[in-house]
Amino acid sequence: MEDIIFGKNSVTEALISGKREINKIIISKSLHSDQKLNKIKELARERGIVFQFVAKEKFQPYAEFNHQGVIAQVAPIKYVDIDDFLAENHENSSLVILDGVEDSHNLGSIIRTCVCAGVEAVIIPSRRNVQVNSTVEKISAGAVNHIKIIKVNSLSNAVEKLKKSNWWVIAAEASAEQNYYDVDYNDMNFAIVMGAEHAGVSKTILKAADFIVKIPMLKSFNSLNVSNALSAIIFETVRQRLSKVKK
Amino acid sequence: MEDIIFGKNSVTEALISGKREINKIIISKSLHSDQKLNKIKELARERGIVFQFVAKEKFQPYAEFNHQGVIAQVAPIKYVDIDDFLAENHENSSLVILDGVEDSHNLGSIIRTCVCAGVEAVIIPSRRNVQVNSTVEKISAGAVNHIKIIKVNSLSNAVEKLKKSNWWVIAAEASAEQNYYDVDYNDMNFAIVMGAEHAGVSKTILKAADFIVKIPMLKSFNSLNVSNALSAIIFETVRQRLSKVKK
Repeated sequence: MEDIIFGKNSVTEALISGKREINKIIISKSLHSDQKLNKIKELARERGIVFQFVAKEKFQPYAEFNHQGVIAQVAPIKYVDIDDFLAENHENSSLVILDGVEDSHNLGSIIRTCVCAGVEAVIIPSRRNVQVNSTVEKISAGAVNHIKIIKVNSLSNAVEKLKKSNWWVIAAEASAEQNYYDVDYNDMNFAIVMGAEHAGVSKTILKAADFIVKIPMLKSFNSLNVSNALSAIIFETVRQRLSKVKK
Repeated sequence: MEDIIFGKNSVTEALISGKREINKIIISKSLHSDQKLNKIKELARERGIVFQFVAKEKFQPYAEFNHQGVIAQVAPIKYVDIDDFLAENHENSSLVILDGVEDSHNLGSIIRTCVCAGVEAVIIPSRRNVQVNSTVEKISAGAVNHIKIIKVNSLSNAVEKLKKSNWWVIAAEASAEQNYYDVDYNDMNFAIVMGAEHAGVSKTILKAADFIVKIPMLKSFNSLNVSNALSAIIFETVRQRLSKVKK
């Protein structure tokens, strides 16, 4: 089986990270040379990866993706096993658990945000959640290659394992009493659980969580998009950690 | 001229907010009745708005949108004039200025985030920025109807006007020295300027800004998506304001 990576930035990121086995890069003949394209060709040469120029009609099957005339055929993403992850040494580490995120755009921008905020891994369930597909990879701007993605059959089991390994589990839920910024995220390993766009975090996970936090809303409007909600929370954890270092 | 609003949530939001002149609601005949659809019909009846059941083939022109079998024909969004806005009384108020955001998904989720965080208005330039189209409205989950959208011909002029009216202008820029959370956002009216996905905030605006702030990145990776970057900053301003109230 093979995945496709679309677009100049995503292909460049895959080449740079080196974590992804790239089988071939395909470039549209009608594409004008530019800095980004030259960089791709240079990186591909360095890594001994074949690139091929084809008629733009060959891109027809991918019309729905913003491929910019460049795609890479790659091996599927390598998921990390949760037991292997927990066997490693973690200190002041963070991870994000997604409980039923169904939208590829959201998963892509969550992964991108996580990489920027130094989150070590993202855990997704193997069902009831969008998987890391080509759209996710594209929206993530290639960030999927810079973070561990852990796929588990049961989120509840994963949460139990985390707790046994002394990770703190913090679930985000609109009806919580505590604000997300009133938790002290320093000196611990923690996992933030974000729920499905409509249903929120599932009850069993809420029950297992050490903290349940909300983002205070200043208008009684609907709710925040899940990737923006995560961004608010995760950068608060970054703020706390960097502020502490400075002291 | 007429705009189209797609999907149950967006149509419901437009009906509830009452700020948008709705000409007609069109519902697919093949749609099964559910709570959301009943709510739409009920609200439409209350407001004396015609709804019409049509064959699902009539939705063909909108296939690319996730219309869920419900659309509303509405008057275009009413932009607010910046001079009118500044003539109003503002206290501890916030607004967001977008300098060249080109992606509809980003604009939609920025507007949604702004409404949740109590931002009073979003300023967009009339050129070099995506406008409030149907996709933006859909992605915003109808939030466009709960916030003032100000369209200006020149962002530089707008920034000058804001400064003359004692608004503080804070530009987000990856190369800044100050972290966004080291600014005190209390007891002032402020405007956060977010730049284009690739080019960032334009030089003239950076020069005019009172503060330039960055989001510290924990990994040397690319940069954050603009809507997630805004979310981190804007909820820090919310945190500061709510924390102060509590004291």
